[in-house]
Amino acid sequence: MTEALNIALLGCGTVGGGVVKLLYEQRERITTRAGRPIQLQHVVVRDLSKPRPNCLPRERLTADLERAVKDPSVHVVVELIGGTGIARDAVLTALRAGKHVVTANKALLALYGREIHETARQAERVVAFEASVAGGVPIVAAISQSLAANQITSIQGILNGTSNFILTAMSEHGQTYEQALLEAQRRGYAEADPTLDVDGSDAAHKLAILAQLAFGVSVAPSAIDRRGIADIDSMDVRFANELGHRIKLLAEAWLSDGLLALQVAPVLLRASTPLAQIRGSANAIQVVGDVVGETLFYGLGAGEMPTASAVLADLIDLAVGRAQRTYAGLKLWSLRDAGSALRDADTVRSKFYLRLIVADRPGVLADVCRCLADEQVSIASVIQHEALDDEEADVVPLVILTHAAPGGRFRAAAARMASLPGIKGPSVWYSVAD
Amino acid sequence: MTEALNIALLGCGTVGGGVVKLLYEQRERITTRAGRPIQLQHVVVRDLSKPRPNCLPRERLTADLERAVKDPSVHVVVELIGGTGIARDAVLTALRAGKHVVTANKALLALYGREIHETARQAERVVAFEASVAGGVPIVAAISQSLAANQITSIQGILNGTSNFILTAMSEHGQTYEQALLEAQRRGYAEADPTLDVDGSDAAHKLAILAQLAFGVSVAPSAIDRRGIADIDSMDVRFANELGHRIKLLAEAWLSDGLLALQVAPVLLRASTPLAQIRGSANAIQVVGDVVGETLFYGLGAGEMPTASAVLADLIDLAVGRAQRTYAGLKLWSLRDAGSALRDADTVRSKFYLRLIVADRPGVLADVCRCLADEQVSIASVIQHEALDDEEADVVPLVILTHAAPGGRFRAAAARMASLPGIKGPSVWYSVAD
Repeated sequence: MTEALNIALLGCGTVGGGVVKLLYEQRERITTRAGRPIQLQHVVVRDLSKPRPNCLPRERLTADLERAVKDPSVHVVVELIGGTGIARDAVLTALRAGKHVVTANKALLALYGREIHETARQAERVVAFEASVAGGVPIVAAISQSLAANQITSIQGILNGTSNFILTAMSEHGQTYEQALLEAQRRGYAEADPTLDVDGSDAAHKLAILAQLAFGVSVAPSAIDRRGIADIDSMDVRFANELGHRIKLLAEAWLSDGLLALQVAPVLLRASTPLAQIRGSANAIQVVGDVVGETLFYGLGAGEMPTASAVLADLIDLAVGRAQRTYAGLKLWSLRDAGSALRDADTVRSKFYLRLIVADRPGVLADVCRCLADEQVSIASVIQHEALDDEEADVVPLVILTHAAPGGRFRAAAARMASLPGIKGPSVWYSVAD
Repeated sequence: MTEALNIALLGCGTVGGGVVKLLYEQRERITTRAGRPIQLQHVVVRDLSKPRPNCLPRERLTADLERAVKDPSVHVVVELIGGTGIARDAVLTALRAGKHVVTANKALLALYGREIHETARQAERVVAFEASVAGGVPIVAAISQSLAANQITSIQGILNGTSNFILTAMSEHGQTYEQALLEAQRRGYAEADPTLDVDGSDAAHKLAILAQLAFGVSVAPSAIDRRGIADIDSMDVRFANELGHRIKLLAEAWLSDGLLALQVAPVLLRASTPLAQIRGSANAIQVVGDVVGETLFYGLGAGEMPTASAVLADLIDLAVGRAQRTYAGLKLWSLRDAGSALRDADTVRSKFYLRLIVADRPGVLADVCRCLADEQVSIASVIQHEALDDEEADVVPLVILTHAAPGGRFRAAAARMASLPGIKGPSVWYSVAD
């Protein structure tokens, strides 16, 4: 039997508990697949009195992070603390102490990727992070290994299960955003404070990591054009459905003419497309490569065991010696900065869905169309809906689908409409993917 | 610069041409990803006078397979000849001469896997075969690496693009099998002799490879319960659609109580399920693992560039040194034989779709129901359709959906019906997946 791969696990919450269970309850399987035992030396927790998985021997638990991370017998530190405070210090300390790092921490990599990967390279150690994007979906391996012959040309991902659960409930059960959020919280899919999930931050972190892998550009999550789902009106979900579309929170990256466009936003997808059909808390990523064409990867993006599956895949890769070879080839965060490589959102062309609440009288539609025409945005179709039940009878929703136009032009037209006399309330718009 | 990885390519047809183009036209990209040049030393073809990709220097072409395979400067032999004659000899010769082998040849691996992998292990060389199943979909890597922490519990795959193209055309355009096949041939999705695609043989070969990877069992393709699509009546495609289902040629493997059930057959899938929505010549594989839950992998399963993408992924894995470590851990075809591990098809439980043409007179339905009841197969619903336009008015199609029952029981009931006086023509049945 070869030497064991010794692990210090930082954090024993949901995912950490899953990793502990796998390592103890599937010891034989893991040893076979890894070619040697993967041995849990320390499990670092803040509160030693909290209940932990029964299979975990008490003597493995410790509150002494520093000692666990620097233990000379430890080969790999698995960081499942989350956040960018203690986790960042721990990861940097571990790398400098000569440990490999496995992490599920997307915020840490998105915000401090350069520092972490530079430290890893100096220490000649590996940072493996399959679990940081889309949980059990092996998208990191797919992009960095399986599609290595390709120049990736676009990525479209449903990367936040909470948002997708909420949008699915709104679409299929006619719930409002608030009702769907409550349901998601009741089922444990959304946290008490759901901000990072529903405002697109979480998806932007994951997109920054995928953009680094697929396009070799370092982009700060704050530089990604981002809209969340908290202000989506159930009326628009309904209209989208009527038009044969679904609204999905998409994280998108696409390359054209050497420039990369990145955005996280609710987007209308044709109902028959694979991504439109991803329901509930699942994740899916469509990746187009110039050689392979269109591919799609689907699975559970969060939760105890799906994420633990990804953490174990990284540990097995390290035990086998694959991760070391993959990481050496990746040169993450060492390539060009995104500054010059990012496309200005104003120049990105898209079709748009525009919904207005307008006074039900002659001339308003003409004014609206004029605003679009002045910006050279052409109209594909107009649907004037019946008066809303819960509104006064003299206003009606007006839905316009445009042909493809530069985002800047469309937004200028939408802004101009706001001041038209017949427009009641804010205009609502989303881009429409083909 | 590290030493180049030198290649002998056997066969320069569709996929071989794609590999040649990638190696020459994307040389810089491939070198970067592989960490060293991947150098084409020989391209072995039978007919030196046929046109080849323009980028290929003529002096690389040779008809001397033996010399190319044994050239001491060659590190890897890429076998894209197909079939199990010359290809088998070439692969065994290459391994014995100390070359790694990359192959897209599913028939070769499914039929001679044991011999090939034993030879590889003796020679301490690698056989890499991502391209042999589902072309550009990285399903071999997913099962053998990314899902390594899992016991796979089921695989359901649309593994034959030709069949899926035909079934999609029958479902969406109301074509007959013959019409759809002609269309597939016209578009180059089906060969002049489409037998291996439409009779399920090709899918069975791929399933045998996946079963080996996921379950460690060696199963001869001939031991896989197999039905093709050539006898599917457009009437049944229509009825399936009316019932909210789609007929798909599925390759299925599932584990229960330690026994593995394998089958390739047309199956009714609920229209809302991901696999039911795979259209045209695409491939998709749904893999369920006991840790990760349900995952799905989608892409183009055949064709010049998608398959070349998979071949290059294997070559890059070899250049980087990953493939060697993966292969060492796989122990393919070295584990238990499937004999004791395979479940008897008669004991596999499923729901069934049954369609009969019956005399339109009292008592026939009662007789049919009695046959099912005698075998303890219970009925979920019965739909007696209108008389067929093109039939005499005194016969009607009768469609029955059953509750789950052992396959043997159901087939016994169906056989019994054949001799009932009111039954006109053969009964047609498919299992129904949930």
